Amino acid sequence: MAKDNKKITEEMIKITGEQNVLFSENELIAYSTDSTNIYNPDEVADVIVFPENKNQVSNIMKYAYENCIPVVPRAAGTSVCGACLPKKGGIVIDFARMNKIIEINKDNLYCIVEPGVIVENLQKEVEKYDLFYPPDPSNLKVSMIGGSIGLSSGGPHTFKYGSTKDYIIDLEVVLSDGRIMNTGSSCAKDVTGYNMTQLFVGSEGTLGIVTKAIIRLIPKPEVKRVMFAYFDSLEDTSITVNDIISNLITPSVIDLLDKNTLNTIENFYPSGILKDKEAALLIEIDGFKSDIDKQYEKIIEICKKNNSSYIQTASTKEEEERIWISRRSSFGATAKLAPNVVTEDVVVPRENIVTLVKGIKEICSRYNLKTCIMGHIGDGNIHPNIALDLRNPVEFDNFQKAKTELFELALSLNGRLSGEHGIGCEKSYFIDKALDSVNLSYMKQIKKLFDPKNILNPDKIF
Amino acid sequence: MAKDNKKITEEMIKITGEQNVLFSENELIAYSTDSTNIYNPDEVADVIVFPENKNQVSNIMKYAYENCIPVVPRAAGTSVCGACLPKKGGIVIDFARMNKIIEINKDNLYCIVEPGVIVENLQKEVEKYDLFYPPDPSNLKVSMIGGSIGLSSGGPHTFKYGSTKDYIIDLEVVLSDGRIMNTGSSCAKDVTGYNMTQLFVGSEGTLGIVTKAIIRLIPKPEVKRVMFAYFDSLEDTSITVNDIISNLITPSVIDLLDKNTLNTIENFYPSGILKDKEAALLIEIDGFKSDIDKQYEKIIEICKKNNSSYIQTASTKEEEERIWISRRSSFGATAKLAPNVVTEDVVVPRENIVTLVKGIKEICSRYNLKTCIMGHIGDGNIHPNIALDLRNPVEFDNFQKAKTELFELALSLNGRLSGEHGIGCEKSYFIDKALDSVNLSYMKQIKKLFDPKNILNPDKIF
Repeated sequence: MAKDNKKITEEMIKITGEQNVLFSENELIAYSTDSTNIYNPDEVADVIVFPENKNQVSNIMKYAYENCIPVVPRAAGTSVCGACLPKKGGIVIDFARMNKIIEINKDNLYCIVEPGVIVENLQKEVEKYDLFYPPDPSNLKVSMIGGSIGLSSGGPHTFKYGSTKDYIIDLEVVLSDGRIMNTGSSCAKDVTGYNMTQLFVGSEGTLGIVTKAIIRLIPKPEVKRVMFAYFDSLEDTSITVNDIISNLITPSVIDLLDKNTLNTIENFYPSGILKDKEAALLIEIDGFKSDIDKQYEKIIEICKKNNSSYIQTASTKEEEERIWISRRSSFGATAKLAPNVVTEDVVVPRENIVTLVKGIKEICSRYNLKTCIMGHIGDGNIHPNIALDLRNPVEFDNFQKAKTELFELALSLNGRLSGEHGIGCEKSYFIDKALDSVNLSYMKQIKKLFDPKNILNPDKIF
Repeated sequence: MAKDNKKITEEMIKITGEQNVLFSENELIAYSTDSTNIYNPDEVADVIVFPENKNQVSNIMKYAYENCIPVVPRAAGTSVCGACLPKKGGIVIDFARMNKIIEINKDNLYCIVEPGVIVENLQKEVEKYDLFYPPDPSNLKVSMIGGSIGLSSGGPHTFKYGSTKDYIIDLEVVLSDGRIMNTGSSCAKDVTGYNMTQLFVGSEGTLGIVTKAIIRLIPKPEVKRVMFAYFDSLEDTSITVNDIISNLITPSVIDLLDKNTLNTIENFYPSGILKDKEAALLIEIDGFKSDIDKQYEKIIEICKKNNSSYIQTASTKEEEERIWISRRSSFGATAKLAPNVVTEDVVVPRENIVTLVKGIKEICSRYNLKTCIMGHIGDGNIHPNIALDLRNPVEFDNFQKAKTELFELALSLNGRLSGEHGIGCEKSYFIDKALDSVNLSYMKQIKKLFDPKNILNPDKIF
């Protein structure tokens, strides 16, 4: 916390009004944590401010720039990599009060939103126009589009539809000195100069603060169908995925759940999940009514051919819902195993997925960590959910060691540190091992170009 | 041409061997033009070099950097915006001899290619694996993937499938000082640091020179069907497009051809195209066999409902081919109207497409320019093909004035200077009117970061 935090608070009240500023000790602590389970008493915000429009954000930045005060943009605070922790104190800008869907334009296939819009609300609103915004991070009921843009969030539907970056065509950004700039346009295609929009997407608020976004939408699929296919070996799940694609089918979702995940879900939320299988694939397809059943049958045939020992199909809305609730319970169920659950996120080219999953199991077992593995197998993107007590120094130390080994494993398989959660402050210690050193040095120079005083979300990514 | 071009030539021979260097006057002139119809005797390359690998490119750049010599990367030279013209002389690096498809990986859904691979060859090769690379610029039989990456080329299939940028996941780039860097990874998803790959895609060789690319592929659609629907009013074509999308159908292609285009094609390549109609839509859908006919019938119904006065359907391969040949002849047919044909490229949000097309007609008629308008109406992307004699000073002057009015019109409709052809040196005079001034200043600073001596494709974009 800065020495002059009273002065900062007064300035924030001047800019946004008293009703938009928090500064009591408890409030400051609450907004200095996120879903990373981390709280460091030396890393607490000086003030929390809830701007109502871009001009207030611009004025906050002008003041912060002049006085060299760190600024951390915050959406719903659901980051699992510490992307919105105020590592150096300063001003936390919370976007909960900039939460308007400004326009849904069906003819142009886009919508215009403020960063505080909740992802699921956006999906529901555009669906009223028969439109579809596919990226669906698992916390979409609470997470906000501003966070999605900052981390280029993915989700189960990324395999067919791509992640957040594939839908953002223009951003209104407040820069470190308070100037406001637009990165792109509302056109579906645009090669007028460099692609500045994609430089900001996934930059975790380290280059500028997003105050508005134009988001590309697509016509929503007519129907979808889902199934759970169980396997007795991991290899068979991978062969099944390849086989489905070879049959020219691109499932809208193709997720993997390992035995521990299946057991943990069924133990805490019994819904008829089989507990004796090595792994399961959740497969969803979408498309036109006249075609979907044929594809569904084809996938069942492929699963059986590849030794699927049981397939839970769904022919009613309720059965479909049950499968999805099971899948979405994986995090919540793991969280019941221990005081904390940490979700990791690594990605490899898909051909290395079985080696990755087996390697993660081996590492976690060696360090005595209860681990439920699930992920988006189609994308080669795996999330080990590790249940532990972070207050226990032995467990904490084991977890840190396992984490580093996990990153080393991913890199050895041509993989990367993150597929969809970002780097934040939790993985930044490893970034120089993960990136081409020339590339990394240019990233740092770009950071310096946009944020010469290093006030924008400092200590993140690098 | 530089004074010491003999020395430059000798150095290029040292680096790549005599068989990979051209330096006769005629050859230098030939490689100092592209499809822009421009040749300026004061803007001729000093030497043309055909490197065989990245190390040779790196050595060329080290020499150029040390001696402040401009370097222009060139793929097939099919740019219509002057993207590969040696405005300041120097070294033209032609990628015709770095033309290998290094790997097609079905399990990982990617391929690895050198920049000299011809786009259609890439499409055909990946199709052998039942895979699909959708971007299809109309010159795909000759244009190379290096050029596609430099301009983020689109094509008819962009409406459903996106443009080149949506398929590039990693680039190997030689920087201005000769260092080599990788921008991304071979993973399907990756948020490990800033999105440097997309900074290079569409940067027209002004930030670095691409020597290798990893390209995402998708399973190829099982079947496709195509039709030509004629209309007596432009408004009806636009309403039809909206109506098709409202019916949850995303055509793989939805192109517009105006009356002049229809007439010009039929006059030069008679194939039964109707000449008395105001406009036509070429609509292609793709997907699964079991569904396609139903969608096809639905689209016909929508076209009829919106006053389509005639629909040419296709039920055999030959009929399909005939429709596509007609469509692809639009440029060649226009080229028969006058010594030169200039293809422009502007883009607007789709709701403004009719206003744009009518405005273009009005401008070109006012300046007495023979203009055939076609474009990708689904994306709001229009290409006026203007037939004229550029040696005629009156026509040339009229064209320049019309071009500026065309850009002003596009901007007034929330549009942009280019949807898929790029800026090059042909539109750079207008870039400061088209872009947010803060954004433009950052683009220039990024250019300076990567190319402090301004030797990489100088005088392009800015």
